[in-house]
This record gives sequence, C-alpha cells and structure tokens, in this order.
Amino acid sequence: MPEPLAYLNGKITAISQATLPIFDMAIVAGATVTETTRTFRHQPFRLKEHIDRLFRSLKAVGFELDLTRDSLQELSQEILEHNARLIPAGHDLGLVHFVSAGQNLTYLGIAGQATYRKPTVCVHTFPLPFELWVERLQQGQHLVTPSIRHVPPECLDPKIKNRSRLHWWLADEQARMVDPKAVALLLDQQGNVTETSAANLFIVRDRKLLTPSRGVTLGGISQRVVAELAEQLGLEYEERDLQVYDVVNADEAFTSCTTYCLLPVTKLNRQPIGSGVPGPIFHQLLSAWSQLAGVDLVEQIRRGADERIAEFHANT
Amino acid sequence: MPEPLAYLNGKITAISQATLPIFDMAIVAGATVTETTRTFRHQPFRLKEHIDRLFRSLKAVGFELDLTRDSLQELSQEILEHNARLIPAGHDLGLVHFVSAGQNLTYLGIAGQATYRKPTVCVHTFPLPFELWVERLQQGQHLVTPSIRHVPPECLDPKIKNRSRLHWWLADEQARMVDPKAVALLLDQQGNVTETSAANLFIVRDRKLLTPSRGVTLGGISQRVVAELAEQLGLEYEERDLQVYDVVNADEAFTSCTTYCLLPVTKLNRQPIGSGVPGPIFHQLLSAWSQLAGVDLVEQIRRGADERIAEFHANT
Amino acid sequence: MPEPLAYLNGKITAISQATLPIFDMAIVAGATVTETTRTFRHQPFRLKEHIDRLFRSLKAVGFELDLTRDSLQELSQEILEHNARLIPAGHDLGLVHFVSAGQNLTYLGIAGQATYRKPTVCVHTFPLPFELWVERLQQGQHLVTPSIRHVPPECLDPKIKNRSRLHWWLADEQARMVDPKAVALLLDQQGNVTETSAANLFIVRDRKLLTPSRGVTLGGISQRVVAELAEQLGLEYEERDLQVYDVVNADEAFTSCTTYCLLPVTKLNRQPIGSGVPGPIFHQLLSAWSQLAGVDLVEQIRRGADERIAEFHANT
Amino acid sequence: MPEPLAYLNGKITAISQATLPIFDMAIVAGATVTETTRTFRHQPFRLKEHIDRLFRSLKAVGFELDLTRDSLQELSQEILEHNARLIPAGHDLGLVHFVSAGQNLTYLGIAGQATYRKPTVCVHTFPLPFELWVERLQQGQHLVTPSIRHVPPECLDPKIKNRSRLHWWLADEQARMVDPKAVALLLDQQGNVTETSAANLFIVRDRKLLTPSRGVTLGGISQRVVAELAEQLGLEYEERDLQVYDVVNADEAFTSCTTYCLLPVTKLNRQPIGSGVPGPIFHQLLSAWSQLAGVDLVEQIRRGADERIAEFHANT
Amino acid sequence: MPEPLAYLNGKITAISQATLPIFDMAIVAGATVTETTRTFRHQPFRLKEHIDRLFRSLKAVGFELDLTRDSLQELSQEILEHNARLIPAGHDLGLVHFVSAGQNLTYLGIAGQATYRKPTVCVHTFPLPFELWVERLQQGQHLVTPSIRHVPPECLDPKIKNRSRLHWWLADEQARMVDPKAVALLLDQQGNVTETSAANLFIVRDRKLLTPSRGVTLGGISQRVVAELAEQLGLEYEERDLQVYDVVNADEAFTSCTTYCLLPVTKLNRQPIGSGVPGPIFHQLLSAWSQLAGVDLVEQIRRGADERIAEFHANT
Amino acid sequence: MPEPLAYLNGKITAISQATLPIFDMAIVAGATVTETTRTFRHQPFRLKEHIDRLFRSLKAVGFELDLTRDSLQELSQEILEHNARLIPAGHDLGLVHFVSAGQNLTYLGIAGQATYRKPTVCVHTFPLPFELWVERLQQGQHLVTPSIRHVPPECLDPKIKNRSRLHWWLADEQARMVDPKAVALLLDQQGNVTETSAANLFIVRDRKLLTPSRGVTLGGISQRVVAELAEQLGLEYEERDLQVYDVVNADEAFTSCTTYCLLPVTKLNRQPIGSGVPGPIFHQLLSAWSQLAGVDLVEQIRRGADERIAEFHANT
Repeated sequence: MPEPLAYLNGKITAISQATLPIFDMAIVAGATVTETTRTFRHQPFRLKEHIDRLFRSLKAVGFELDLTRDSLQELSQEILEHNARLIPAGHDLGLVHFVSAGQNLTYLGIAGQATYRKPTVCVHTFPLPFELWVERLQQGQHLVTPSIRHVPPECLDPKIKNRSRLHWWLADEQARMVDPKAVALLLDQQGNVTETSAANLFIVRDRKLLTPSRGVTLGGISQRVVAELAEQLGLEYEERDLQVYDVVNADEAFTSCTTYCLLPVTKLNRQPIGSGVPGPIFHQLLSAWSQLAGVDLVEQIRRGADERIAEFHANT
Repeated sequence: MPEPLAYLNGKITAISQATLPIFDMAIVAGATVTETTRTFRHQPFRLKEHIDRLFRSLKAVGFELDLTRDSLQELSQEILEHNARLIPAGHDLGLVHFVSAGQNLTYLGIAGQATYRKPTVCVHTFPLPFELWVERLQQGQHLVTPSIRHVPPECLDPKIKNRSRLHWWLADEQARMVDPKAVALLLDQQGNVTETSAANLFIVRDRKLLTPSRGVTLGGISQRVVAELAEQLGLEYEERDLQVYDVVNADEAFTSCTTYCLLPVTKLNRQPIGSGVPGPIFHQLLSAWSQLAGVDLVEQIRRGADERIAEFHANT
Repeated sequence: MPEPLAYLNGKITAISQATLPIFDMAIVAGATVTETTRTFRHQPFRLKEHIDRLFRSLKAVGFELDLTRDSLQELSQEILEHNARLIPAGHDLGLVHFVSAGQNLTYLGIAGQATYRKPTVCVHTFPLPFELWVERLQQGQHLVTPSIRHVPPECLDPKIKNRSRLHWWLADEQARMVDPKAVALLLDQQGNVTETSAANLFIVRDRKLLTPSRGVTLGGISQRVVAELAEQLGLEYEERDLQVYDVVNADEAFTSCTTYCLLPVTKLNRQPIGSGVPGPIFHQLLSAWSQLAGVDLVEQIRRGADERIAEFHANT
Repeated sequence: MPEPLAYLNGKITAISQATLPIFDMAIVAGATVTETTRTFRHQPFRLKEHIDRLFRSLKAVGFELDLTRDSLQELSQEILEHNARLIPAGHDLGLVHFVSAGQNLTYLGIAGQATYRKPTVCVHTFPLPFELWVERLQQGQHLVTPSIRHVPPECLDPKIKNRSRLHWWLADEQARMVDPKAVALLLDQQGNVTETSAANLFIVRDRKLLTPSRGVTLGGISQRVVAELAEQLGLEYEERDLQVYDVVNADEAFTSCTTYCLLPVTKLNRQPIGSGVPGPIFHQLLSAWSQLAGVDLVEQIRRGADERIAEFHANT
Repeated sequence: MPEPLAYLNGKITAISQATLPIFDMAIVAGATVTETTRTFRHQPFRLKEHIDRLFRSLKAVGFELDLTRDSLQELSQEILEHNARLIPAGHDLGLVHFVSAGQNLTYLGIAGQATYRKPTVCVHTFPLPFELWVERLQQGQHLVTPSIRHVPPECLDPKIKNRSRLHWWLADEQARMVDPKAVALLLDQQGNVTETSAANLFIVRDRKLLTPSRGVTLGGISQRVVAELAEQLGLEYEERDLQVYDVVNADEAFTSCTTYCLLPVTKLNRQPIGSGVPGPIFHQLLSAWSQLAGVDLVEQIRRGADERIAEFHANT
Repeated sequence: MPEPLAYLNGKITAISQATLPIFDMAIVAGATVTETTRTFRHQPFRLKEHIDRLFRSLKAVGFELDLTRDSLQELSQEILEHNARLIPAGHDLGLVHFVSAGQNLTYLGIAGQATYRKPTVCVHTFPLPFELWVERLQQGQHLVTPSIRHVPPECLDPKIKNRSRLHWWLADEQARMVDPKAVALLLDQQGNVTETSAANLFIVRDRKLLTPSRGVTLGGISQRVVAELAEQLGLEYEERDLQVYDVVNADEAFTSCTTYCLLPVTKLNRQPIGSGVPGPIFHQLLSAWSQLAGVDLVEQIRRGADERIAEFHANT
C-alpha cells in the first residue's frame, strides 16, 4: 500500500522513514517552531500566510533556513498533491511544517560544531481526524481553566508558534481531571483568558465577537478568517482583555483552529454558556466558512468521522 | 567499528538506529522529562539519585512508566558497560534518560487512542566533551543576564527536569550576542538570579557558599555534592535569593553540573568577579570532588580535551 | 408607625425582622453577590439591567436561584411600591438585592447537607442619604490612593459585584487617615487606577471622557448611563488604562454611582484637579441626567439633605 | 429542649436568637475578623492564644473593641460551660468568635453616624462535625489546586483571619469539579502552595516537616502545635516556599486545623502522595496530639461520627 | 568669546556659572523633572506644549513653582534669542528646563527648613549634536533589550519626565555590551517594549504605524507630531502593547525624539528589521517633518555634523 | 570664619565652592552612587566598611574610579579632621561620598567624548542634625505605607546605594499627607515592608529582632551593628519577609541608620505599636550602641539639639 511522503532535511521520503535522531534539538530542548495548514478539497488554504507566519517565528528565534518561502511552498504543494491521493475524496489533509535548531553540540561531540547551526526542516501531512470533532460540533466543547498559567511573553512569546509546550500538555491534563473531554483554557498571569492548546477563543455578546488581546495569544490565521467572515456578516469584532466572567456570561462562545475551522464552546468550568448549546452566530460563521472553503464543513466532519471509524473497525 | 548502544521503548539498539518518529510528543510538544548522569572511571555517579529525580519529574507530569526504578537502573548499567568499552580509558561517559508523553493522537489518527498514554523511554550515552570545558576551566566562564526571564513555577516548575526549553535556547543566544563564549544566567520575574541552561550557580562570600533558592531552580544533584564537600571543607552553605549585585560583588563564583562537575565563573555582564580568575575555594572544592570521584578532574579535562581534538583532526 | 418591607428567603416581612442567622455564609465567608438600584420619582431606574447584572454575578459564582428574573423583578416592584409610601414625595429609595451561598454546613451539623445549596435571597430598600452627598456635590470629593491594592481578577473578578470587601473597608480607612472625608481610589497591581468602593471614576481631558478599563473594575450601569449622556452631549468617551498622573492632570474628574448618579472629584492625594472646583462637563452631564431621570438631581440632594437633617434633629 | 447560648453585642441569648440585621457590615461587606477554638474533654484548647490572635486581627483592621481580652475569655468560658452540657460526654465543641465593623452608615441613614464605629461582637459554639472527618481520616484528603489564586498580602493579609472569603468558596467549588470530596489548595501569585480554606498544609520529606512560608498563610495555632509535637518526636521542622512538585513528591502530607487537629492528605490533583495512604509520621503526630489533648482523637472521630449519624437518623 | 546664557533660580548668567551646590536635591536624590525642546531655524518648536508637559510633571510630583507658564516661556525665548546668535545659521539649539525639589534639609542644617520647599529652576540650551545622529540616520539604529526592566508606574510614572534615571543609564550600558553603538529598548514587567532613554518607538506594519501604549512610556510630544504627519500622509496610527516579536517582524521601525525628530531603527538584538535599511515610510515621515519645520532635516544633520566635526578638529 | 572643606574631582576646596556644572550626570540622570558615614567623638565609625560598600555600588553600576580605597579613605580622614574642628566638641559629623557618571555627552558636544567616562567624585561633611531627631527619640516615629511601591531589583537593585530616588521623595510626601512628621515605609511589589528612605526597619517579637529580607533593601551597615549588639545582648536576630500585619502587632519597632544610629517607631498608619512608646529592647540596644561608640547617644541628641537650636536663634 502506498505511503504518504514527507520532506526531511532536503529529502522526500516515506513518512515512516521520517524520523529524528535523538540528538536533535527538537527532542533535546523542544527548540522548534512550527505551522499547521489544512486543505479544502485537497487544496491548501492560505498556505502563503502560514509560511509567512513560519518565517516570522523563525526570525523571532533566529533560526536561519536555507530554503526560500517559495521553495518551501512548492515542496509543500508537491507533498500535498501526492498524499491527497491516499485519502478519500471527501476528506482533507493537515499539512505540518516544523523547524528545529538542529543537532545538539554536546551529544555530537567536537564534530558537531560545524553542523550545529543547520536547522532541521520537516514537512508532513496527516489526514484530518474528523472523529475527534464530531461530538464537539454537536454538543460543544467543555473548557476548563487549569491552575497552570500560560507562559508569559517575557519568557517565550506565544506569537512564536513553538513546540516547548509541556505546560500546555499539563494544563490539558488538569482540564481532563474535571471532564475527560474537556480542553484547557489557559489564563495569563493577570487572570485574562488566553487560548487553548490548539485554538483561539471567541465569545459573542450582543452580536459582537470578542477575542483575547494579541499580546498573550498566537495571532491566529483562522482568527483572521473569523474577522473577515464577521465583517461579511455584519458582526462587530474586537480584540480585548477578557476574563472568565466574560466567557460564562457570553451569549455564545467558540474556538477557531486551522484544522477544524470552528467548534462551539458550550461550557466553561461546568457552567453552561448561553443556552448551553451551539448558538446561531456560530452556525452563521460556520456556514460562511463552508461557503468560503467550498466544503460543507458540518457534513464533512459528520461523514468523515463515520467513514474513519468504520475504516478503523474494518482494519482491526 | 562497534557503535554505542541505546535503549528505546523496550529494545536495545545501536545508537544510530535510536530515532523518534516525527509524531512523538517529544518532537510535537517538547513533552519530555529527562536526566543526565555521568561516570567516573566508567562507573555511574549517584545513578540511584538521578533515577529517583527522574521519577519525581515523571510523577509531577503524570507520565506512567512500565519500568521500575530497578529495571531502569539495570539496563542503564548494561548500556554503560557496553559503551564504556568504546571510549579511551581515561575518558568518561554522560548517561541520558528521557521519557516523553508518547505518540501524538491527532497525527496518528483514531488508532492512536490506544497507544497515546504509552510514554517513549530512551537511555543513551555520550562521551564527555572535555574540549568544551578546558578553556573555561582555566579562564572561567562569562555569564550574561539576558532580557528573557526564566519560566515561572506557576507555568512549569523548574524542578521538573524537562525539555520544553526553547526559552533557554533563546536566552543563550542573547548571551552570545555579548560574547560568543558567554552562557545565559536567567533572572526570575522578581529579578533574582536562577540557573544557567545546564548548571547551578554558586557564589562565595567570606568563605560562605551561597546558591539561589530552590523555588526557581532545579534542585541539582551536583549542587548537593557541593553542599557535602562544603561541609567537609568547613565552608558555610546557604540557599537564598541572590541578585546580580551579589554575583558581581562576590569573592568567587562557579557553577556545578552533572557532566563537568565544577567550572569557575569569572565575569558577569563583562564585570570581573573577585580577582577575575578562578578562586581558591573553587580549587579546593574541585580537588575535593576529584578525591571523591577518584579522578583528577583538572587533569582529565585537560588531557581529555587534547586527545579528543587530536582524534577529531586525525579523522578529518 | 408603618415599617418598610423586605423580602427574605421567600417571605415578605418588616425590615426589622429581616435578620440572618449567624451561620449564613454571608456572615461566615462574605460569600454574597449583590446589586443596588435606585428610584427616580419612586420608579426604579434600569431595574432590568441591574437584575441582569445580578444574574451574571450569580452565574460567575455558581449560586443557583429558584427565582426567575421576572419574579425577582415583580417582588422588587412590590416592595418598592410599599416602601415608597413611607418616604417624603421628593425623596427616593435605594433598592438592594443580595444572594449568599446559604447556610454553613459545618455549623449546622449533619442536617445541613440538604439545605447547604439553597442560597439566601434578600431584597430591601433604604431612603437615599442625601446628607452624605450635599457637601461633596458643592465642593467635590477628595480621593486618596491607599497602599492597599485592588483584589486582582485572578483571585476574585471585580465584575462580580460581591461582598467580600474587607480590603475596600481598609482602603477607605487608609484614605480617611489623610482626610476624614476622603474616599479611597484603589490602584491595581500594575499601578492603574480602578474604582472607589462605590463608584466608577471618570476624568475629562479636552472634552473627552476617560474611564478605567473594564478588566479591573465593575462594569458600572451608571457608567453606561454616562456613556449615553456623553454621546448625547457630543463628548468623546473611551475606556483605557489610567494612572494617578492622568487624574491629577485632568481638566475635571467625577465619579458615577447608582445612588447619587454623579459627584465631582476635585482633589487627588491633596492635589487639586483642574481648577479645584466642580467643572462644566460635570455640570452638563448632571443636567442631562436630571432630564433623563425627570428629577432635578442638584435640587433633590440639597433639599433632601436639609429635610433629612431637620427630621433627624426633630427626632432626637 | 435546652438550646445552646451565644453572646451577641453584650447579651447572652439562645443561639437561634443570635441573628444579625441585614445592615451589619458582616453581611454588607464581609468586614469581619474571626477565630475558632475547640475543646478537648469540654475544656478549650489554647483559648488565650486564639484570643490573642483575634486581637492581632482586630489591630490590623483597626476595629476597636470595648471588651478586654480577659472579659472575652471569661464570657467564652461561660458559654462553653453551658453549651458543653448539651452534647454527649465524648464529643467536643468548636468555639467561634467574630467581630464585624458594625452597622452600615448608608443604610441606617443619618442616625447611623453615632453607632457606626461600634463593632458587632459574637461568640458561639457548634458541636464538632466528626462525620465530616471520619472518611478523610482513614483514606486521606484529596487536594486540588484551582485556577483561582490566593488573595495577595498587598490586598488583604492572610494573617488577618477574616471573612471576606468568597474567593475561597469559589476555589473549593473548582476543587469539587474534580472530585466532590476534594478541597482546594490555593496557590499564591508566584505559584507557591499556601493553605486550604480551613487548614495549614504540611509535607514530610525524609522525616522533616515542611510547611509554606508565613507570608502567604495564616500563622496557624495548630501549626504551632505541630511544631511542638515535631520537636518532641525529634522531627525537623521548617517553614519555606513549597510548590506542587514538592507536595506530589513528598513522603507524606497532612493538614492541621483547629477543629480536627490533623487529617492526612493522600492525593494532590489526582496524583497519590507517597504510598497513597496516611503515613507513619502522620500517625505519630496524631498520637502525640491525642496524648497532649487527653483525648484519643482517632477514636473520638470514629465514635463521634457514628453517634452523630445515628442521632441524625433517629431524628429524621 | 561670548558665552551662552542660562537661567538659574531667578538669575540669568553665563552657562559656565550655572552650577548647583552639592546639597541640591537634584544631586542628592535625582528629585528633578525636566523638559527638552528644540528650535527649527532658531525658533522653538511647540514650546508651549513642552511647558505644559513640564507643568504636568510638576503637578504630579507636587513641586510648586513661583513662575507662571507665560513668564517661563518668555525667559526661555530670551535665552534662546541670545544663545542662537552664538551658533552657525544652519544649526539649531536644544532648550532644557529642569526643576528640582530644592536644597536638602539635613545637609543645610536647621536653617534649611525655610528654603526647603523652594524648587531649583534652571533653563539652558545646547547646540544640537548632529555628529551623534549622522551615521544612525544613514544606517539606522541598533536597539537591544537589556535584562533591566523599565521602572513600573506604581513606583514612578514614566509620564513624569524625570531625572531619576540610573536604571536607564545601566540599561544603555547593557545594550552597549552587545554593540558599542546600540541603544537600550526597555521592556516593562509584562514583557512589552516601552521606550529608549530618549525616544519613542514606532513600528510600521502594512503601512500602519504602531507605538507602545501610553501606560508605560512618556507621552511624547514628537510622538504626537508623528501622529499628525501620519494622518497627513494617510497612514493608520495606533497605540497598543507591542512585544519584541512585533518589532523584529515589522516592515520598518524608527524612533521619534524632540532633538533629532526621527531616526530609523534597522536592527533589534542583532536581527535586521525589514530589509535592514531605513524604509520608505520613515523617509516619507521625515520629509513631511522637514516641511513642517521648514528645515531639511537630512541635510541639516549631514552638513551640521560635518561642520561640528571640522570645528572641533580646528579647535584641538 | 573658616568654612568646611570638601573634595571634588581631585581638589580640596571650601564646601561652598563645591558645585556641579548642570551637565553633570548626577543632575541630568540621577546617575550617582553614594555613602554616608558618621563620626563618634570626631572619629569615623566603620569608614572602611562604608568605602567597601561604595565600591560594591560602583562595581554594580560599572563606574571606574581612579582612586583606590586607601586613598579615598585617607582624603576622607583629612577632610574630617579639618571639618571636625569647626563644630562643638560634643557634636559629630556626617561624611558623604558620592560618585556620578560624569559629564553628559550630548550637552558637552563632541568634545565631551573624552571626558564622558570620567566619574565625578565628591566627599563632604555635614554637622549631624540632632534637632531632627530629638522629638522622635522621645516619642517615636510615625511610619506610613504610601501607595507608591519600592523600585524592584529587576529595575534597580536597592543594594546599590544610589541617588535616583524621586520615588522615595514622592513616597515621603504621601506619608506627610497623613502626618507632617511621618516617614514613608515602602512596600515592595509583593506587599512586604522594605525600608524607609534613610533607614532599615526592625521589629521586636518575643525578644527576637526581625528585619526585612536583604533582597528588597539596602544591606545596612548599621543593620549589621544591630545584629552584633543583639548577639551581645542575647537577642535572637532574623532576616525575613515581613508585612504590615507583623509591624502593627510587634512588641516594639525601631529603625537603624548611619547618622542617628537608632530611633524608635511607635506608630504605623496611625496604629500604635506595642504600648505606643519606645520599648525596653530599643533602649537596651541604644545603650549598647552608646557604649560601643563611646558616646551617650541620648544625651548627645538632646544636648546637641538644644545647642543647635540656640545657635540658630542666636544667628537669626
């Protein structure tokens, strides 16, 4: 059976061959920046914007790539084209870029000095995991504020999309203590809500969309899509500091994310938000996004989930 | 030529075969805890203490290992024994343990659910890089306080020896802006000095050793060795909050680290500390440590560095 | 002589009978949320908005009421109607709602378990204390920044109108050390001005109204009235972080509050603000509010104060 | 049937008559300081120390009492003596003192001015609720760190034993989301563990007792008892900053509290502490305390719980 | 040769005679507020605005001046007129006002009491040092974020233009460790960029000017000029929190300052900003400013620098 | 009449001639470090320790002096010897050293470059102002905690005895709002008490001396004298974090300072400390210090104050 391809340090290989030596700084120090893009109907969505943001992250950490934006885009397209053939027609792919600081000098020994500064570059894809979203799409997500705080910008700027995220992993564990399906919504050190480990938060109040200030969150590309759709739908849109009080008292809430686009949030710390079910503004935005993408996102998630689960059971 | 062995997820393999799939949470999120031990005369030093600290880190992050402390110790010994035969008699090894959160669910797809909670476990060694230390041993290290602050305990406790360390990598980059050989000494959010990316700091004032409070640093095992040696030498020892002022005005300063044991610090932010050369207390402690280890550490670093550099040039 | 009525836990009683057992969580832990509304010409002003805000506070603390908003509004009206008959025609009432967490389990013993989750609900009124405002209306208030800081949102969100306010009581005591008539203006932990124990602050600069950001203050309903009046009068209006510097250098300053509506601020920390007397914008806003309310607020405070003082002396 | 007595503002009355008017600052602002003492064999334990601490709280908030320490002690004894007769011989009482800032001026109107500064003073008792402790004694408590932080000393010093505790109530609610029997262990703004809503925390490491620094907790009187017992048992004792890492990696943990004396802690955030059951040092300390008190505390809790539950069922 | 004049405490004297006794609070405590204005073609630019800001600083610190704004403006004009005659026609002057808290009581002894509250007032000029700017104009400035943080508003509001600036001096020293020509860009305690020791920062992103929020910087008068010129040129303008990430990823960056007006920033922490050379928006703004001022600012700096260097060499 | 001498930049001159040009960085930026020593019977007390601390401050700020410690000590002695002859026999002198960053480059123009790095050095004396202390000695000082916070170590370390102290000046102004004789006791950003603008704080609790931690205060030399005297008198001594609660509830409180040695503190924020009068431990320590100094300090202050006031009146 044909296998998906991946790009790793100059070579295109089968994804199962794309492994990192244990001396890579990705493994040794989490010294990695990353991006995730997704396809709609097998075409990447805003790939250029994602590559631009990857280069902003690279600049902020000072990794020097020997690939131009264009060549990275081209090889991403090439991999996508190949890998898309391996998934069902109605499904889509996530496309991942990551760049680490390269090999660890101490472990490599003296010979390492020369290669130290050569970053590790990887591009790969994964089929979108619709089965993870289907229930949340219907019932909404449960967010929980853990006691762990988001790493502040004076330590590591959240706008650098990076992979030193153990604190996020632990925060999600804390959220799952409350509800195995819950997702952590981290607070910053001033008590403002920030983001989840994968998504930007929005609340709706009187037909106005509010989302946390940029200082403490990744400036999401799907967040910007929401802003565009909001304008198109005549909804006000504002970035500002928000607290837990604002979220539990919102009319609606939802998160935006590159892979799933939009998922409703219907509970925070066990308190229902609004009427406790996905709200009308959420549905309007999701429809508008479906139109923009040329894909019925609700339909895709539902059918995709069914098909993936069926296939999984067929294989086991 | 025989290759060093490594342990990875239940198997012992040649180290070059010990690679991680790009879906491992070590790579995806820096969700990894770790330990480094070293040998003296090819015997591990305080291995039990290091394994105990690894298990404390594991408990703090909630990774559940299917190896007992004893079995981990045994297989570490086995790998050490084999790998020690591959290095010159007078050299020694660093022994690394790391455990990640296992594979990433989203990337693996639905099949991942089952294996998600199975951590990745790896044990490997590396020859000690004496050439990195020889100049610092003679002239002392230059520490620089970067503008980046240490991640605070309410985000991720520094006592968890973890690998979400991009902020450390960036901090060292900032230090190298000042001096290519400098090492970052991170401040905490209150302006206290904490630790370097690899070592604990000590200052000497009136024959008293002072080292930063445990709240904001890894509780170092070599730090505890220093405490023991201090007692043996009749030096007072105290953990307390210290600021840059205290370091620049110290009589001496040095760092302790599992691999190199002790290295002097002779400059902070370009200001000489004490007389600007490694001080007498540093030398006393290093001698005492040599005696404890049964290895002349100065001699080993000097000779080891020469031999490694010579071998490197022979090979290129 | 007829007594005002109050509502307490399902019953309407004479206010002097409305007492709480010492095991109530209002007394044991200050675990209470509250609202204050006022009447103009004996009709409640924006009662629905106040009840909505009460329900937002209730949601944020998780107290579950067995009264709907409508029934609470009705019984509030009923009490108001009765009690308004007991005050002079030109006077008005304050209307208070408070809800506590109910009885304390430990004190009640085992039987308490059942009733624990039943909140205590109280509705009562009080005649507006014009005598407290008459001098401040003429000469302006003196605000003082105490050394005590406002409780930060990560501990207890100021948008929850609650009664765990010992720190406010102490802050006002500190203000009174400087001037027995002074009122505390609390700073937040970043040094921004927030609010007084009863009111929102506004400053006027170049005909623009500025008021502290919502993150660190109760979102005042009278603050919103000011915003409406400002729009009506063609004055710009902005919420933003403000510091002491901004207040002492303002053209004018004033506070807004449910009960007294608006009072000028003419001194901060003994420094005169603007010309040191109530300013023209303040007077414009107060006139506009009088019109909105159908009550000459200046006249009411002056005459009301005289009448209340006269009555008091008659009674003693 | 005879009822317990309580003291309220100069009068001794049946406890059911001890109610506060809704204008009391205890209810209006949580402006109250308090103490809890308990009896052993119907005699108060360290009552003088508790009254001294009450007076320290009073001084810190500036409430001026017209009772001396001696007269407060006497009337406490008097109430205790009476109320102790109403409980079974083997049971004991909790004794509560609280003092609020008196009546609210605004609500009382002009006549209030005179009585404003007269604090409300109350003394009452409650039978110790053994049924709340019996299961925790055997299985240990589950502590959970909520996302809510402890109010910092610059807002309200935790050494003032006060009743503006809505944030504690909310924190316990957050803990109960994880486990209905869990109790909140609040972190301070630096991420150190502080205290639970009713007790001081201790951890045991290598036969050494560690308890959080005094800056961020109430200086507990039972905490001091533990210190005395530790000395007697030859255990080291130290106050220092502790983090979650320290607690989950402790050999044992327990809390001390005036009413229950000592209860084990066997889980933090679902992680077992030590062997996951109450430890030997806990048992030693509890035995020592039983001896000091002249009461077998284990026996009393077990039997007392049974008897109270039986009585409760008899009554319903 | 005629000497420039200065005003000091009521007298106009030759500048070399304008010295302060060592008991002045300017020297003893840095208790001084200040302003700097500049001339264009020997006429002061926005002198009234600078004097207004001086009076805002004076109010914020509570120094009471016995000069009106008008008389201070007049004597400033008088000094300017005289001193302008001493410089070449194409050059310009900086005009400095400073006011200290007067003499130190303790040092003066008992007689001091009377004069204590009389502030020291000084007005002087200096020829603009074009030679400091000429290279930076062409190549851009290198900014470095030091580990020292800006003093927060709760200690000393940066909007008070004051001379307690040792921390700035140290911050610039830290910047010079990286590059002898670098200038410090201080972060605040939340990790936002603030200002340099002499200037406000701007970044350009998609033809929009962004500058840090007013809370943590001096509200610059030249910053306001930039806002005016931006409007004139159709560029958006916004004050908001910015981090290092935003600056390194900007299209352009520059600083504004009373004396030099505008200088480009082309590097931050050794990372090039945009294309690494002064950008088109910078040049547009500088041209617009030249037009506003009636002085070709580029030409003036280039020619002025040459002339001053030549004159200096002629004199030595 | 002969005048006291002062040393300024290499020359010894009459103190009235010791003035600084307005371009000195002492005036321009408060970029100055300093020391104050005093004499007992005209001999300097611990002059070497003060000069050592001055050199620690110099090192921390990086000013390079061209005087050795010995030569600075010698010339200090020389000045003291001369100036002591000008005061009454029973009086004593304060000796001040200060070093600024030298002249400001921008103001001096291009010629400044050469002299820029040459610090300004000044040594002078002043007769001790006994009249400022006599009342406080008898009645104790009133300390007030202002809303202004102490500058944190990450901005400017309080252990650097520096003259960028406008925030202290403002803090004292805030204290004087409460009581014209009050002195500010600054809190740090965590709410701990730190120091007054001139002195270290001590509290006495159960015959134990407690003084704030070194991190947030100048490590006082007189503080160390107190430690020595405490040991001599068998009093425990500890440095630790203290809050307002601790001070108002202390048995006694006092401050130590180079010039006056010790003065009692009898009120904090209008609350009496202990019995509200200077306490027995204070008196013991002051007696011990008198013995150490060979001067009856109480007698000297009383008589000295009388004599200075008499002389002042004679002269006016």
